[in-house]
Amino acid sequence: MAKIGFVGLGVMGSRMVRRLMDAGHSVTGYNRTRSKAQELLDRGMLWGDTPRAVAEASEITLSMVSNTEALYAITGGPDGVLAGLGPGKYYVDISTVSPAASRDIARQVSAVGARMLDAPVSGSVITLEQGTLSLMVAGDPEAFEKVLPVLQAIGPTVNYVGENGLAVTMKVATNLSLAVQMLAFSEGVLLAEKSGIKRETAVEVLLNSVIASPMIKYRGPFVLDMPDEAWFDVNMMQKDLGLALELGKQMDVPLPTSSVTNEFLTAARGMGMQDQDFAVIFEVLASMSGVRKS
Amino acid sequence: MAKIGFVGLGVMGSRMVRRLMDAGHSVTGYNRTRSKAQELLDRGMLWGDTPRAVAEASEITLSMVSNTEALYAITGGPDGVLAGLGPGKYYVDISTVSPAASRDIARQVSAVGARMLDAPVSGSVITLEQGTLSLMVAGDPEAFEKVLPVLQAIGPTVNYVGENGLAVTMKVATNLSLAVQMLAFSEGVLLAEKSGIKRETAVEVLLNSVIASPMIKYRGPFVLDMPDEAWFDVNMMQKDLGLALELGKQMDVPLPTSSVTNEFLTAARGMGMQDQDFAVIFEVLASMSGVRKS
Amino acid sequence: MAKIGFVGLGVMGSRMVRRLMDAGHSVTGYNRTRSKAQELLDRGMLWGDTPRAVAEASEITLSMVSNTEALYAITGGPDGVLAGLGPGKYYVDISTVSPAASRDIARQVSAVGARMLDAPVSGSVITLEQGTLSLMVAGDPEAFEKVLPVLQAIGPTVNYVGENGLAVTMKVATNLSLAVQMLAFSEGVLLAEKSGIKRETAVEVLLNSVIASPMIKYRGPFVLDMPDEAWFDVNMMQKDLGLALELGKQMDVPLPTSSVTNEFLTAARGMGMQDQDFAVIFEVLASMSGVRKS
Amino acid sequence: MAKIGFVGLGVMGSRMVRRLMDAGHSVTGYNRTRSKAQELLDRGMLWGDTPRAVAEASEITLSMVSNTEALYAITGGPDGVLAGLGPGKYYVDISTVSPAASRDIARQVSAVGARMLDAPVSGSVITLEQGTLSLMVAGDPEAFEKVLPVLQAIGPTVNYVGENGLAVTMKVATNLSLAVQMLAFSEGVLLAEKSGIKRETAVEVLLNSVIASPMIKYRGPFVLDMPDEAWFDVNMMQKDLGLALELGKQMDVPLPTSSVTNEFLTAARGMGMQDQDFAVIFEVLASMSGVRKS
Repeated sequence: MAKIGFVGLGVMGSRMVRRLMDAGHSVTGYNRTRSKAQELLDRGMLWGDTPRAVAEASEITLSMVSNTEALYAITGGPDGVLAGLGPGKYYVDISTVSPAASRDIARQVSAVGARMLDAPVSGSVITLEQGTLSLMVAGDPEAFEKVLPVLQAIGPTVNYVGENGLAVTMKVATNLSLAVQMLAFSEGVLLAEKSGIKRETAVEVLLNSVIASPMIKYRGPFVLDMPDEAWFDVNMMQKDLGLALELGKQMDVPLPTSSVTNEFLTAARGMGMQDQDFAVIFEVLASMSGVRKS
Repeated sequence: MAKIGFVGLGVMGSRMVRRLMDAGHSVTGYNRTRSKAQELLDRGMLWGDTPRAVAEASEITLSMVSNTEALYAITGGPDGVLAGLGPGKYYVDISTVSPAASRDIARQVSAVGARMLDAPVSGSVITLEQGTLSLMVAGDPEAFEKVLPVLQAIGPTVNYVGENGLAVTMKVATNLSLAVQMLAFSEGVLLAEKSGIKRETAVEVLLNSVIASPMIKYRGPFVLDMPDEAWFDVNMMQKDLGLALELGKQMDVPLPTSSVTNEFLTAARGMGMQDQDFAVIFEVLASMSGVRKS
Repeated sequence: MAKIGFVGLGVMGSRMVRRLMDAGHSVTGYNRTRSKAQELLDRGMLWGDTPRAVAEASEITLSMVSNTEALYAITGGPDGVLAGLGPGKYYVDISTVSPAASRDIARQVSAVGARMLDAPVSGSVITLEQGTLSLMVAGDPEAFEKVLPVLQAIGPTVNYVGENGLAVTMKVATNLSLAVQMLAFSEGVLLAEKSGIKRETAVEVLLNSVIASPMIKYRGPFVLDMPDEAWFDVNMMQKDLGLALELGKQMDVPLPTSSVTNEFLTAARGMGMQDQDFAVIFEVLASMSGVRKS
Repeated sequence: MAKIGFVGLGVMGSRMVRRLMDAGHSVTGYNRTRSKAQELLDRGMLWGDTPRAVAEASEITLSMVSNTEALYAITGGPDGVLAGLGPGKYYVDISTVSPAASRDIARQVSAVGARMLDAPVSGSVITLEQGTLSLMVAGDPEAFEKVLPVLQAIGPTVNYVGENGLAVTMKVATNLSLAVQMLAFSEGVLLAEKSGIKRETAVEVLLNSVIASPMIKYRGPFVLDMPDEAWFDVNMMQKDLGLALELGKQMDVPLPTSSVTNEFLTAARGMGMQDQDFAVIFEVLASMSGVRKS
């Protein structure tokens, strides 16, 4: 069993650590707010005072943060992950960040003799808990072979996609469908509802149909009862869609459904719903249809 | 076991009849081209010379045709289904037609003392063969109770949605997501491919992700190898999307992703690909991205 | 000077009649509600009791109605225009109707020995009053030569575009830009306003810029002060856009900006603003941006 | 008459200098490639060896460059405009750059005791030569009063819009309509053409209609005959649209027509037409409609 480090113990990160410990790994963790890590510490997780300390104590360091800026914050500087890495060590970033930033940090990791993989996940808290999470991984193939068993402890499905930066690229290419599918689903629900079908019935039928992706299965019912806490809020969703649109412009790929959907996420922000789960895109469309909030 | 009639023995209809016979029902069938029904006749299906003859011979008559015009053609006139219906009989139309047309025919069925349900299916040949098809049903609740066991022999999941016309409404509200999901999927594949990920890998990862609806699971691989025969061609898909857009205008529901996707189906026609499976929407986007057909 | 008939004396029609009389023509008019024609009768217009009576009394009969249904209503039946036409007579329809309907009626007109032109106008009340209206005309070229002087009395610019039905086609192809330009203009105004520029200033600058079409010049200021009476309401605008989208589907021309704009007109209806000038599309976007109505 | 400096003597810049000299001003100019300035030097323009030298020699320095990076390049460093400015001097940037960058440089100009205005233009070479250009200006109101006569020599219409950065904001809010209007125009032309109207006729009618903005008047005919040299190429147009979309996201303003149009500019790049005038968006749509390039 490997000595593993983990930086970023939020909703997803903390559950990953639990799975790693359940699989028998020793984990040293770090989080900006230590108190949020108490439950993991009680279960035996070791504490690192800085990202650097975590990397120094571990053969394989993983990180899971919310955006590109946060990734630079935990990797750079005297207390950063880079300062704690060295020859023979591995660094795996699970965050969804810009492909260019991921490649940039991979180069810095190489410069200190270690090797980096980008390995974002497709799925949500529920997928993780059900053990059906899938990971896409990119970087040096030998490093991939070495780290694979650890990644399999997090999600059973692991796909190798190519050189550094391509896994976050693949993640971004996946996530655009989250928002688009949710907006198309909302169109269907409202069409049914305004025609005289109960919203509950419309959702149930759609969840039994061939358009019910795993994401629609767990997020679709949100249009009946929006969760108090966002699983993935409008700002986060729009961050991912923004990465997709930027990449589309760079790579000359028109993104018709992504771009139109992005404007409805902007509307969600304009209407003050930026902190809600992005399923709230339904409410934008409902208000345009003259359907009052229940 | 009921005496069942079936009008329209195409790709879907013929497989439904087989399932009905496998479940022990006696079936009288009719198809415009009799030769296409030979295999079913060999298996014991009875033949009706006209839709009227089928309805006269049956307690419950089902039909599955390709559009609104075809439905009027098989129900009206001296040889039509209506002429063979009467008190105590049931008529179930499984086609996807305009909600207004379905309600119109339901009224005519009532006028001759019989009762009609609209009961379109969500799924494709593969879903049907795997026994995972789902049906949405609308019309008189008592008629629904009576006919339910027969419908369950076709697809295990049966959802009752409301009064006449609302099942085809629900179908239209479901199907818009088929086209939109396929276009968003294509955006993701091309974004990955032009960034340097192999198309095969991109498809595999997407099929393992939370955006993989059952439809994406079977149609997604078409972007690697387009089928010789369309499962659901561009014209058919655009017919359904057209019904959705018409309904959206009537019910004052804006359909942003459906409308933009519809224009790409129009482009598929403009580029001469109208008879191919609607997955060919990928080729429209690929050509706009400067990706040559393999 | 010719003996002219005019059916449909609404906002546009009545002003056209005035111009025809000012040019020295004798006009026999008909309107569903006679009282609305009083001012014209006071100025010397003759009255026809039915569209047929108008056509019987005139060498050249013009009509201006609000949609395809209304055109069939005034032309067909025992009191319709067709019943009053005959060899040597001309019928010019100025309405915006479906190209197919226009061609259909042209065939009926030919059948009674007369000749028809479709001749819709580009412009509004203000353009008409300023004498800057433009007409597009289609049909038999000889008939066009004969009727040209009369049409020039209505709008100075007259363009011949081809055979019957093509002038309404051209009109529909023109009018889609009305709605699209207005939505793009609204995007610009709101972008400026939310960045800190006064709405008045933003409108003024845009009206001085190269994007200020004549339509933007007269309709742009509506975002500062919506008119009490619509010049061209949401329903009318959406009727024209609907004809364009139908034609796009028939002719295999994708209409990306028209289709997305159409959904915002649908939203205007969903939000209860269907009877206002279509400039109200600004309010749909403003509400999505969190900008309160002044 | 003021001593004026001008940095950036490209297509637009050189013509502005000519107008300034025609109005009696003394101009010191600088361009990266001196040879391009020969004609102006022959007419009496003075030469500055660096942007700094230009600013040192002038009371009012103007600049016109192609994007944000170029603006930083000519203003910063030991040879930059900033190094040549000082108390009592004015700096006017006419370029279209990001509002944030413009505000940033305005702060640096203030720090050396001078004052800056952002003053982008709406229009093209033809508008400038016809003397119908309009400028929007932002920054200190006193500086505006001082510089106004000079700006009026460039374009007769000058609109003051507010504090620093708001003129480029207004420019960006204007320019989104350029691309959108051109795509909507293309939809109309293709709809007419595929219905049987000659492309020449369709363009002529549209140019006579109420949708013919000054931009459509000069760029519309490009769909008949694309210019050898772009007036404003796809990359430039997409740069401006990118600034608009970025601002829309910051300010929470959905931009439905801008975003969909942007994807068609991306397609123009994907199809290899990035260096052509952005009117080439017509060719993207034409190819989707199955219309062959003439």
